[in-house]
Amino acid sequence: MIRKHFAGFAASALALAVSAQAFAGTVTTDGADIVIKTKGGLEVATADKEFAFKIGGRLQADYSTFDGFYTDSGDAADAAYFRRAFLEISGVAYSDWEYKFSYDFAHNAGSSEDGYWDEASITYTGFDPINIKMGRFDPDFGLEKATSSKWVTAQERNAAYDLIDWANGHQNGLGIQVNGTAGDSLYASAGLHAKDQNDEDGNSVKQFNLRGVFAPMHESGNVLHLGLNFAQRDLDDTAVDTRIRSRLGMRGVSTAGGNDAGDEGNRLLLAGDDGLPAGSYGEDKAFGVEAAWAMGPLSVQGEYIKRDLQADDAAYEDIEATGYYGQVAYTLTGEARTYKLGRFDAIKPQNKQIGAWEVFYRYDHIEAEDDTVGIVATNDVEGKVHNLGLNWYVNEAVKLSGVYVKTAVDNQENAAGDDDGDGMVFRAQYVF
Amino acid sequence: MIRKHFAGFAASALALAVSAQAFAGTVTTDGADIVIKTKGGLEVATADKEFAFKIGGRLQADYSTFDGFYTDSGDAADAAYFRRAFLEISGVAYSDWEYKFSYDFAHNAGSSEDGYWDEASITYTGFDPINIKMGRFDPDFGLEKATSSKWVTAQERNAAYDLIDWANGHQNGLGIQVNGTAGDSLYASAGLHAKDQNDEDGNSVKQFNLRGVFAPMHESGNVLHLGLNFAQRDLDDTAVDTRIRSRLGMRGVSTAGGNDAGDEGNRLLLAGDDGLPAGSYGEDKAFGVEAAWAMGPLSVQGEYIKRDLQADDAAYEDIEATGYYGQVAYTLTGEARTYKLGRFDAIKPQNKQIGAWEVFYRYDHIEAEDDTVGIVATNDVEGKVHNLGLNWYVNEAVKLSGVYVKTAVDNQENAAGDDDGDGMVFRAQYVF
Amino acid sequence: MIRKHFAGFAASALALAVSAQAFAGTVTTDGADIVIKTKGGLEVATADKEFAFKIGGRLQADYSTFDGFYTDSGDAADAAYFRRAFLEISGVAYSDWEYKFSYDFAHNAGSSEDGYWDEASITYTGFDPINIKMGRFDPDFGLEKATSSKWVTAQERNAAYDLIDWANGHQNGLGIQVNGTAGDSLYASAGLHAKDQNDEDGNSVKQFNLRGVFAPMHESGNVLHLGLNFAQRDLDDTAVDTRIRSRLGMRGVSTAGGNDAGDEGNRLLLAGDDGLPAGSYGEDKAFGVEAAWAMGPLSVQGEYIKRDLQADDAAYEDIEATGYYGQVAYTLTGEARTYKLGRFDAIKPQNKQIGAWEVFYRYDHIEAEDDTVGIVATNDVEGKVHNLGLNWYVNEAVKLSGVYVKTAVDNQENAAGDDDGDGMVFRAQYVF
Repeated sequence: MIRKHFAGFAASALALAVSAQAFAGTVTTDGADIVIKTKGGLEVATADKEFAFKIGGRLQADYSTFDGFYTDSGDAADAAYFRRAFLEISGVAYSDWEYKFSYDFAHNAGSSEDGYWDEASITYTGFDPINIKMGRFDPDFGLEKATSSKWVTAQERNAAYDLIDWANGHQNGLGIQVNGTAGDSLYASAGLHAKDQNDEDGNSVKQFNLRGVFAPMHESGNVLHLGLNFAQRDLDDTAVDTRIRSRLGMRGVSTAGGNDAGDEGNRLLLAGDDGLPAGSYGEDKAFGVEAAWAMGPLSVQGEYIKRDLQADDAAYEDIEATGYYGQVAYTLTGEARTYKLGRFDAIKPQNKQIGAWEVFYRYDHIEAEDDTVGIVATNDVEGKVHNLGLNWYVNEAVKLSGVYVKTAVDNQENAAGDDDGDGMVFRAQYVF
Repeated sequence: MIRKHFAGFAASALALAVSAQAFAGTVTTDGADIVIKTKGGLEVATADKEFAFKIGGRLQADYSTFDGFYTDSGDAADAAYFRRAFLEISGVAYSDWEYKFSYDFAHNAGSSEDGYWDEASITYTGFDPINIKMGRFDPDFGLEKATSSKWVTAQERNAAYDLIDWANGHQNGLGIQVNGTAGDSLYASAGLHAKDQNDEDGNSVKQFNLRGVFAPMHESGNVLHLGLNFAQRDLDDTAVDTRIRSRLGMRGVSTAGGNDAGDEGNRLLLAGDDGLPAGSYGEDKAFGVEAAWAMGPLSVQGEYIKRDLQADDAAYEDIEATGYYGQVAYTLTGEARTYKLGRFDAIKPQNKQIGAWEVFYRYDHIEAEDDTVGIVATNDVEGKVHNLGLNWYVNEAVKLSGVYVKTAVDNQENAAGDDDGDGMVFRAQYVF
Repeated sequence: MIRKHFAGFAASALALAVSAQAFAGTVTTDGADIVIKTKGGLEVATADKEFAFKIGGRLQADYSTFDGFYTDSGDAADAAYFRRAFLEISGVAYSDWEYKFSYDFAHNAGSSEDGYWDEASITYTGFDPINIKMGRFDPDFGLEKATSSKWVTAQERNAAYDLIDWANGHQNGLGIQVNGTAGDSLYASAGLHAKDQNDEDGNSVKQFNLRGVFAPMHESGNVLHLGLNFAQRDLDDTAVDTRIRSRLGMRGVSTAGGNDAGDEGNRLLLAGDDGLPAGSYGEDKAFGVEAAWAMGPLSVQGEYIKRDLQADDAAYEDIEATGYYGQVAYTLTGEARTYKLGRFDAIKPQNKQIGAWEVFYRYDHIEAEDDTVGIVATNDVEGKVHNLGLNWYVNEAVKLSGVYVKTAVDNQENAAGDDDGDGMVFRAQYVF
């Protein structure tokens, strides 16, 4: 290789590098050549990629104010909290074995008993392009979920995910997932998850997930993306909390990580009840369809979600919930959203002076039917959320954003009789 | 630049560095030149300072024994605990954006719900010498508070801060602060903080802080420092815990992080009550005056603190609390306390064999008046604390210290009738 | 030194290394020469070893299924959890001062109030070969305990340790330990520990530990190891939980870190009771004898444990518990278990393709006598555990293992009348 040959010009180039740092110490390794990088965090890898270590994180500090349906009294309340404060450590050993430690020090993921994990996983990549991942991680379900919380367009993901939180949340369980690509435009994953919820015998609830993506156009700024999702779990013999609730895009009504609206915060109850005995409900299924299209700075995406929870006892009725959202985003400064097969990623500002500016609008619609006598409402409960926002990607590390959120609900109201409300959310985000 | 020119003598210097490490690998970057440093922790920065990453921490392991007023029975109790166990990660991205993650794994800062943060913040430094800081951090109030807990003289900061714990504690809220300097001798900061405490509508309590420092002499070992502090919050419509309590310099009477005196530990209650309904109290104000003088190894400092909490309901009376402390410290081995505008910092031992040895004495005095019928005592409650201690700065990483603490209180006593008590605190500290 | 001399041949070797990375930046230090290493984690040390920093961790993801005595109903239950998820940071400052931060993010060590520590300690090594360690760490007691949880043979350490969990567990206290070696074959340690448990006055329970090892053969693959252990604590005037319980090798019956069997999990109660008043019991002593022998890929080890808990009140009887285990392990691929004076360590696979494969069998036997009327059983309760397992050391970072565990108990049964049970445990472990 080239290093075995003498390259005369380089000798002088190097020599002077050294003379400029005459009192600086040298840095070497005890074996393989190493490359180091910092962008606020740290990456260290052997030049041959056999071993690697990376440490970084994300901090999202939010301030929000909201009223109407979002509070019990309808009066304005506010909240100031860390939405996420992740420390993320990952690495590679012996080329084919990767690990990821991602922990939420804001305590919004996980629990006190089981640790506040975003993700802790081991992945075997030796069957490339097939990966086998095991550990604690969110099941794969949905396009917006597939996008990192660092780079999702609005501050909060769409409300339709609230209908199927178990389908793409780890809930302190462990799972194993096989995922992979075929060519440039096909991606699929299949996962089996044991959740931290027991049936009467002490067996964990098992969940099965499938996701498939076809993206005939798959370059940043030139995207056509279609996807299907399915998740299933069996709640036979399991005491259940069937409540379907939504914050309707306003995290501050109830959150860990700092100040929320406390007792005054109001969430929409769409269906279900808490503390139901084993045998009340059985099979639980979630379906999702996803589509996205992007051309240059413009992107459009949407998802449709459906959930069927089957009653096993005559005292209860099946619960059916559906939701969808549609989103349009436009980068005023011209940058395209990065696309990687199966998901969108960061917007990287081209202009170092003004950064990148993005406007977006998203409409969320959710509804649920629960005919069990005495539960919720006679008629189907609906929730609608308008999100109109502005994102400023100051640079690749800092993002400042604001969103105006307006909600209206049908067949539910807060204690003061409000069936609509609105608010603002501001976020300062630092990724290192 | 110099690297573009040939510097002949360096070629040989470098060549032999390499020959000595013939089997060592090289370390390079994928872009900018990088400088690395370790003193037990790790610092990595690009040579142009555009990006930086730092990881370190502090461990404070304490053992204390105490009796008299410090316990319910007056008999001797002890405690062995981590006072602080911080992991601290900080960095810079794009020159002007800094972050700091400082987390207390001893669980003495923060809470289970909101994370055990010492600090999590983002700072914009682009308007140098003005900085804008946002996130979770302690409001700026007081000279001893401004000094890092690593390098504060006694093991515990002065008892007068117990009167106004909200004024310089973050209490799981978020804030924004503007601070800056003018010339070499003026420093000021102004902060607005939303605390994790709600009024009846779910609005967070807001707090405003101001601090100004004038230090006509501002070099280590040659200091004259004067400062003023003000903090204000409004508790209108907020259910409150107005209790003013103090550990009187003895953390072990009640602490997380390990073993404390449990039910036997006794804290001084100076005024106030718990669980008061909204509307009981209104505006809360804190004032502080600070002064310090240092000449070579000798330093003298003191602060005066005053708090006014105004009653809003006729059933309650205004609460007024005042406190002060005076401290003298002398480094037997001659080193001066490092001074940086607005605060003292580490003592760095000059003699590598014996380290630096410092003796100190601090007297704390606190008192509070609460005339609400049935509360505390008819007469003003007072607490006095003598602290006489010795610090051994073994090197820049390790500090071992011991302090004798003696307290006397007026118009309060423990269950056994004691109105004075004393004890010892030993600390092993490691900073990396 | 050699770097002061010109070594002509090296000039060309270096020059070409540089030419291959013409656009790469340089990495230097601001002082001492530094050596960097990554095997998935990161190590940075000055070449003169005066300063060092290391960050790494371990992740153990377990899945188990079990029935019979292990559950209340006797029906099969399962569990999926992180047994350990440590982030480990350690370092050296000024040559003689070491620190270690090892924190269990799976929350199986420590507690919410005091932090989930595996270990946080400061060690002074300046009196080499004598070390002085202080902080939170497990007291030294037993051979299998001395082996890191990364490299212990079976997934769970032997059941006899359940009889004396206080003897080798830190229980959120702090301690100081002196340990050292004499020659190549003698090791000893003495520790004094203040536990997070108080007597009636608020004084922490004190514990004293001694361990001595004589290993006339002390090379990996050629080991003869003998050891003695003693621990003593005084529970006079301390409210106590005297229960001696064992999971009988099946962690999933009750664990933090994820899903366990919940209310269905059953642990063996051998003796004692909860919530006993101060004065019930007094001196508590633990004795241990350890022996091991290894020849090439074969290793045999065993320990005998005895505990005496003396009753101080006539209403209670002394509790006596004894246990032992014997283990045989054989590495099919030929590697020896690494031995370091006083403990076994990792098996390092020689064959990079197939890794190392180890089979093992361990038999645990525990029993306890408690004649206090109304407690447990009239006759001594016994527990026996067979562990038959297979470990695959894929490489130095990844270990996959499975074990079949079968238990039988005497004079106890679960709610369904079972006095035996069995199960399987699978573990994926990643060390970085």
